[in-house]
Amino acid sequence: MRNLCMVVSYDGTSYHGFQSQPQKNTIQDKIEEALALLTGEKILIVSSGRTDARVHARAQIINFITGSPIPVRSWGLAINTILPHDIVVLHVKEVPMEFHARKGAKSKTYRYTINGNRFADVFQRFTQFHHPTYLNVDEMEKALHCLIGKHDFTSFCSRKSVKESHIRTINEAKIVREQQIDPFQNPVQAGVFHIYLTGNGFLYNMVRIIAGTLIEIGEGKKDANEMKRILEAEDRSYAGPTADAHGLTLWEVSY
Amino acid sequence: MRNLCMVVSYDGTSYHGFQSQPQKNTIQDKIEEALALLTGEKILIVSSGRTDARVHARAQIINFITGSPIPVRSWGLAINTILPHDIVVLHVKEVPMEFHARKGAKSKTYRYTINGNRFADVFQRFTQFHHPTYLNVDEMEKALHCLIGKHDFTSFCSRKSVKESHIRTINEAKIVREQQIDPFQNPVQAGVFHIYLTGNGFLYNMVRIIAGTLIEIGEGKKDANEMKRILEAEDRSYAGPTADAHGLTLWEVSY
Repeated sequence: MRNLCMVVSYDGTSYHGFQSQPQKNTIQDKIEEALALLTGEKILIVSSGRTDARVHARAQIINFITGSPIPVRSWGLAINTILPHDIVVLHVKEVPMEFHARKGAKSKTYRYTINGNRFADVFQRFTQFHHPTYLNVDEMEKALHCLIGKHDFTSFCSRKSVKESHIRTINEAKIVREQQIDPFQNPVQAGVFHIYLTGNGFLYNMVRIIAGTLIEIGEGKKDANEMKRILEAEDRSYAGPTADAHGLTLWEVSY
Repeated sequence: MRNLCMVVSYDGTSYHGFQSQPQKNTIQDKIEEALALLTGEKILIVSSGRTDARVHARAQIINFITGSPIPVRSWGLAINTILPHDIVVLHVKEVPMEFHARKGAKSKTYRYTINGNRFADVFQRFTQFHHPTYLNVDEMEKALHCLIGKHDFTSFCSRKSVKESHIRTINEAKIVREQQIDPFQNPVQAGVFHIYLTGNGFLYNMVRIIAGTLIEIGEGKKDANEMKRILEAEDRSYAGPTADAHGLTLWEVSY
């Protein structure tokens, strides 16, 4: 038996999230079906963590135990031939038997992308949240920086969370602006920008609630200075709405 | 009556090309239906030129005559509300009555994108032609440069062409490589690169046949020096196959 680790990229648009659910179309089901076809085994995969419906992954990490003799170098091509075109395995390696994609994850990076141009980009419409009215990105960035460090993130966590502790550490938080390439957009618009958050763990809906709160700050509905008070309130009702799922991408997982 | 010019961006994946055809789903039909709904007029649009099924446009140019009193600044928002999400109007302006999007076009730029990585990019799968085996991009670039200038492009033109003359001028031809951002790809792979062609006019399937020929050169099936002989042969059978439509984007039109 071997423990194999895979880097998987997926466009979450057509799926009910990563995790297997009865009668739902999920990414886990697609991968497990492909593995069953390839190996003849009933394989259960472990991921670094679930992603919600319509959320994407650039580099999700999964692992599974298999008795299959297929050489490591052949796995990628073999499984990609079976997988649908919106799920692609980018890399495969053999790892020690004790490696566990969820338990071993040291930190994760998520990206939330906002298109602040007047009109949407047709080619990125499934991965960018389109916000056509004015956003003050500098204020959003100022507010975002308040989140760096170890905090109780109850204010930025879905009330459905069943976690005992809401204390998490954000190691890095930044906004990266794309170069404006569309000559037809109004110059006062915010352009396309990405919110990156790296931390040791993220609560249910945490990145989307942070994005939703930052959007309210960008709109001027909330002041950047309020971010600290929202965090300290430890109360979901203080934060903004949960931003749309499709702007979110699981960017990277570190072990 | 006014003559309005629009910059239109579309993801051609779901369409039978730009030009209206009986019983087919076309971009022209979608735009004309939206204009009819908006103005109550039966409007016929003129484009800079048709694009084939599954070919995209970053900035297609169209114009049409209308008696509608809607102010220019309101057109974009109004029509985008009606159009499907894979067609977006980026800019609208009033132009002199004699402006004609096809006849007035001085030059056009097309982009053909190849993903030469081992595995496809799920997020760009509708706009990148995936070529997982080795390509010598330097040789492709060398061959591409032979096409610059005024030539008879019969070798790079579909036999279905009904044009009287196949003489066209290519003003600029270049390959632009994307920065490799995927750490999981094999370093000997070609990465993602874009073939840009700018000229005073393009024949039926011309860019796709040029791309198909360059791919054969990149694969080593043809030598870069053969490009000149293929061009001089003025015979379609000398060139490579017509590359897949989905890698092609109408990039820019100049007037």
